[in-house]
Amino acid sequence: MKTIVAHAAKDLRIEDRPDPTPGPGQVLIKMKNGGICGSDLHYYNHGGFGTIRIKEPMILGHEVSGRVVSIGADVEGLTEGQLVAVSPSRPCGVCKFCAEGLQNHCLNMRFYGSAMPFPHIQGAFRELLVADASQCVPADGLTAEEAAMAEPLAVVLHAAKQAGDLMGKRVLVTGCGPIGLLAVLVARAAGAVEIAATDITAFTLDMAQKVGADITINVAEASNRLDDFAADKGHFNVHFECSGVAAAVASAVPALRPGATLVQLGLGGDMTLPMQAMTAKEIQLKGSFRFHAEFRTAVEMMQAGRLDVKPLVTHSIAMNDAVAAFELASDRQQAIKVQLSF
Amino acid sequence: MKTIVAHAAKDLRIEDRPDPTPGPGQVLIKMKNGGICGSDLHYYNHGGFGTIRIKEPMILGHEVSGRVVSIGADVEGLTEGQLVAVSPSRPCGVCKFCAEGLQNHCLNMRFYGSAMPFPHIQGAFRELLVADASQCVPADGLTAEEAAMAEPLAVVLHAAKQAGDLMGKRVLVTGCGPIGLLAVLVARAAGAVEIAATDITAFTLDMAQKVGADITINVAEASNRLDDFAADKGHFNVHFECSGVAAAVASAVPALRPGATLVQLGLGGDMTLPMQAMTAKEIQLKGSFRFHAEFRTAVEMMQAGRLDVKPLVTHSIAMNDAVAAFELASDRQQAIKVQLSF
Amino acid sequence: MKTIVAHAAKDLRIEDRPDPTPGPGQVLIKMKNGGICGSDLHYYNHGGFGTIRIKEPMILGHEVSGRVVSIGADVEGLTEGQLVAVSPSRPCGVCKFCAEGLQNHCLNMRFYGSAMPFPHIQGAFRELLVADASQCVPADGLTAEEAAMAEPLAVVLHAAKQAGDLMGKRVLVTGCGPIGLLAVLVARAAGAVEIAATDITAFTLDMAQKVGADITINVAEASNRLDDFAADKGHFNVHFECSGVAAAVASAVPALRPGATLVQLGLGGDMTLPMQAMTAKEIQLKGSFRFHAEFRTAVEMMQAGRLDVKPLVTHSIAMNDAVAAFELASDRQQAIKVQLSF
Amino acid sequence: MKTIVAHAAKDLRIEDRPDPTPGPGQVLIKMKNGGICGSDLHYYNHGGFGTIRIKEPMILGHEVSGRVVSIGADVEGLTEGQLVAVSPSRPCGVCKFCAEGLQNHCLNMRFYGSAMPFPHIQGAFRELLVADASQCVPADGLTAEEAAMAEPLAVVLHAAKQAGDLMGKRVLVTGCGPIGLLAVLVARAAGAVEIAATDITAFTLDMAQKVGADITINVAEASNRLDDFAADKGHFNVHFECSGVAAAVASAVPALRPGATLVQLGLGGDMTLPMQAMTAKEIQLKGSFRFHAEFRTAVEMMQAGRLDVKPLVTHSIAMNDAVAAFELASDRQQAIKVQLSF
Repeated sequence: MKTIVAHAAKDLRIEDRPDPTPGPGQVLIKMKNGGICGSDLHYYNHGGFGTIRIKEPMILGHEVSGRVVSIGADVEGLTEGQLVAVSPSRPCGVCKFCAEGLQNHCLNMRFYGSAMPFPHIQGAFRELLVADASQCVPADGLTAEEAAMAEPLAVVLHAAKQAGDLMGKRVLVTGCGPIGLLAVLVARAAGAVEIAATDITAFTLDMAQKVGADITINVAEASNRLDDFAADKGHFNVHFECSGVAAAVASAVPALRPGATLVQLGLGGDMTLPMQAMTAKEIQLKGSFRFHAEFRTAVEMMQAGRLDVKPLVTHSIAMNDAVAAFELASDRQQAIKVQLSF
Repeated sequence: MKTIVAHAAKDLRIEDRPDPTPGPGQVLIKMKNGGICGSDLHYYNHGGFGTIRIKEPMILGHEVSGRVVSIGADVEGLTEGQLVAVSPSRPCGVCKFCAEGLQNHCLNMRFYGSAMPFPHIQGAFRELLVADASQCVPADGLTAEEAAMAEPLAVVLHAAKQAGDLMGKRVLVTGCGPIGLLAVLVARAAGAVEIAATDITAFTLDMAQKVGADITINVAEASNRLDDFAADKGHFNVHFECSGVAAAVASAVPALRPGATLVQLGLGGDMTLPMQAMTAKEIQLKGSFRFHAEFRTAVEMMQAGRLDVKPLVTHSIAMNDAVAAFELASDRQQAIKVQLSF
Repeated sequence: MKTIVAHAAKDLRIEDRPDPTPGPGQVLIKMKNGGICGSDLHYYNHGGFGTIRIKEPMILGHEVSGRVVSIGADVEGLTEGQLVAVSPSRPCGVCKFCAEGLQNHCLNMRFYGSAMPFPHIQGAFRELLVADASQCVPADGLTAEEAAMAEPLAVVLHAAKQAGDLMGKRVLVTGCGPIGLLAVLVARAAGAVEIAATDITAFTLDMAQKVGADITINVAEASNRLDDFAADKGHFNVHFECSGVAAAVASAVPALRPGATLVQLGLGGDMTLPMQAMTAKEIQLKGSFRFHAEFRTAVEMMQAGRLDVKPLVTHSIAMNDAVAAFELASDRQQAIKVQLSF
Repeated sequence: MKTIVAHAAKDLRIEDRPDPTPGPGQVLIKMKNGGICGSDLHYYNHGGFGTIRIKEPMILGHEVSGRVVSIGADVEGLTEGQLVAVSPSRPCGVCKFCAEGLQNHCLNMRFYGSAMPFPHIQGAFRELLVADASQCVPADGLTAEEAAMAEPLAVVLHAAKQAGDLMGKRVLVTGCGPIGLLAVLVARAAGAVEIAATDITAFTLDMAQKVGADITINVAEASNRLDDFAADKGHFNVHFECSGVAAAVASAVPALRPGATLVQLGLGGDMTLPMQAMTAKEIQLKGSFRFHAEFRTAVEMMQAGRLDVKPLVTHSIAMNDAVAAFELASDRQQAIKVQLSF
């Protein structure tokens, strides 16, 4: 089978690997679609991020869907030919964090396409994948494109859980990449009464408006309209920070109400924050990282028609053009979510 | 001005009262619409409920909207001619519960059309009303019918707050009167992934489906399909109990997941509950009573188009036909929300 | 080895069973102490409770401690001779509730000394026990009596978690059996500013005072002093209901503040509750059932000296006198916690 | 009457002001004790902090107690001669944040001894004070020293509320000034199972141990023992950050468990934080600022003997030696809480 392998920065290759065989409790999946995520782009463009570096060839990819082609022993609830969204998250299930229901903090996590432990955890951009049945959520009624969006949607559903009930709330989203746009979509689905989105490109802000933002603000322009929301100690109840840029926090704090929740999704290294104002306003800054049970919820929300991710999948590109796809995905002026098709 | 006054069970009269004049901080409102609530019906049909009885003539009504016709001194933010939703809730603002943000439990509450203290608190079914400016929420963009729905919608938004985040949750609503149907609408607006509604009449269940229920169950029929949801310790995460009937709780408990939240909205006197199962499943039974800040949120949610209450206002009847309106509102086979127009 | 076996109501026998051998991941424990719980008493006195009946001989007991005498393969963190508190709770670790961190609702729970599934789950009143290492919490520094109190203490710590932060709160405990008295102790350890306890016997109320109750009320006496706390809509923030008697809830509701949390620990079948008042006051009635992570916390709290359970262990009786011990434990005028010593 | 007035950095004067007279709803208080707070020290040593500067003479002080000497009209619940703790917090009671129960974020706050608005809000270091009856909490049974500790204790009780239930939790306190030491005391009173405290002086760490810290760490020493708690993704559930120093956060993050709550009490301007790790660990960083209802709780907790603040009041100095008292309070090697006596 063909796979997409990162060797180093800007060294992405299509390589053959032996076909895998499902064991007990497992299924063999013919892969359909795989979305390129920001971390995939970091491996592709820079060979890693922060202290995490590619040290051996690694198959990329963790936002994937496919069809079940064969089923191992002791598997229930899946049928041959069925479209499934495949969760890339494989917690151990027995460590103390798993036992507490904090599987996203599993001490022995094996997340697809991650260079964190060594040997690296190989990813899911490939023609065939063997996965545990428990990773596979039936996606009947969805397209393969939608099913491959379950993973980033789960990330945002998990973040929304940090913020609690959004109904009737005023929500600010900073950074309109795929995660930020999903945050707009989720806030809308959860009944937020007003949604403002900021970014630095008209292309992404147009998309934000299309998927439900009531207000869009281009913070690259001279006047930062977030200041308009600073009167009477602020306006927004919830802030999804999806840019990873400290300035996005600093400029937003005056626009947040006392006691507002700021959910940090963007991963941006050290950040210098206006802690005096954040403390005096009792801002609740909550990190959000990956997901667990939300993966299934993501599929169910799409199946029930509660939200529509299709506008966000701007491109679907054949596996053989992977390098072009990664280049396109790196261009925030042209693409939101670029998916590979296998 | 004309008013609608309850004297005793089945003794409802249209009576003249002197026109009121707004003082400082107040406005005079020409009333437009007033919804008949279950408590109004109890006063009309039975002269009260439980130990609460009409002891003197009382103007009914607390779900109202109107247009500002004159404005007293020291009022900001309201203009003549403006449509407003008028909150019937007048907490004192200084007792210990008000100071804690629990205004719905105010020790000195003066809620329109309530026989609870004596002399009774006169209601808002009348041609003219003087209200504090702080009770009036501008309803620009809404119809008078919608604005008069702010009150019951606020009741349900408050109940939803007890249940927390509904996004991705499975929600059961028992009792499809106006409150139950608003619970369906709110659960849908808040992103519930599946909504089941029960009642004993086809008319209300049809409406439930129309406003967003995925599943409707007529519990008057022989087989109680709630049992279908009892496998693996239950199915629903949240239950809005809007019937006030103990059997609605008892039949629902097997269908609730461990740790589910059961929000009790219906007021039905003593209830015999399956406490052993409720304890073993760690059901969280939370009473919900009236509202405070949710009144403004209700108006904002309608203005933002996040939910549409119009299908629920099945009848609008002229004030002079009040008795007919109260009779119609008492008939759950024909009417959902009956409003008076003044 | 000798074991204590219930055959039917009032038919408790000391019987021999073959000595067990630890497998991989397991340890062999020489049992030291075992507390007699209310459910043990139900099996002894009535052959079961509700629909749960003894259908085959069952070893009783689930509040136990002992010393490790041999250690199977693949066990870490335990040493021979070490005193351990043994958790009777054995969730499967893989069902959906286990995956959510709700192990106390495990679909495949195997809880010691429980007649719930058939064949029954044999209990821990025995000379030797093989347990999974993960059930054993090192209890260095504690007495065997204290270690055997970890289980009921865990029940109460779990209940306290339902109530949230108790610091500065006013707490009511109804029913001063072992669980109610532990609730007094835990409320005190958690910083409750005032603790009132009710029961119908002077003996248990004296003990309540000894372990930290500021106020004790004998509700068997003519004047129910709980009415003294009903002014201004009530006094207590939190109510631990440990009697399982509906009257305990009904008489307490007027004394609970709006929004108070009522944690139901007592298991008492159907209960007729004042739901109108509970709804209007927005009481939060939360069932509490068993525990999971709190078992380890219970041991740690005792080790750190944060609370002292020793006064509650009023009797320690040799295994051979088991029948006498069960009779004594059934007498709420003489005994709080009766333990067997093996 | 004599008052203590800050004119500029290091310019503190004892000045006469006219005796005040209580109006309706007010009482006249003969002041007894007043604790010197960190903000008083900033005014004294630097003429302000950040952008907040003394622009006119301002009486300092907001941690005070005294005895009621005369009572205005319409006051209930206070008697002449009674010791009271006086809350320095005077929210307006009508703005939107007051109505939500967020009085500490009142848009019109008038907090004693604060240069924030201009004209400044005069403080309470004075011989006589007229206060609203609602500011005065009867402190019967306490010493004047204890009563004057109600204010900083309320600050910490408010912070503890951000962290939720502390029972059985592992708590880290960084910075052992008066606030940090009260955090130790409060964590202990709330049932924390293990408390670690860090600072840079042996004097304060000794005091931390005296009031309940299980572990003390001098972070000025070469080896930072916080690293010892970093295994398996961290150890502490809750972190009270009371130093206002970014390094205290940065060095603590590895020792915090995933999902831990970091309550920021120290006010230290912009801070550069390890946001990548904080996001990946889903740390919840919550600002905490002042208090409201906790002031009364603070008095009640002391009256009930739930915690003992007396060891923290290391010095009580006559008003005439105010300059010496401020110098002493500035020396963290010698003093914890320095109080003035009037």
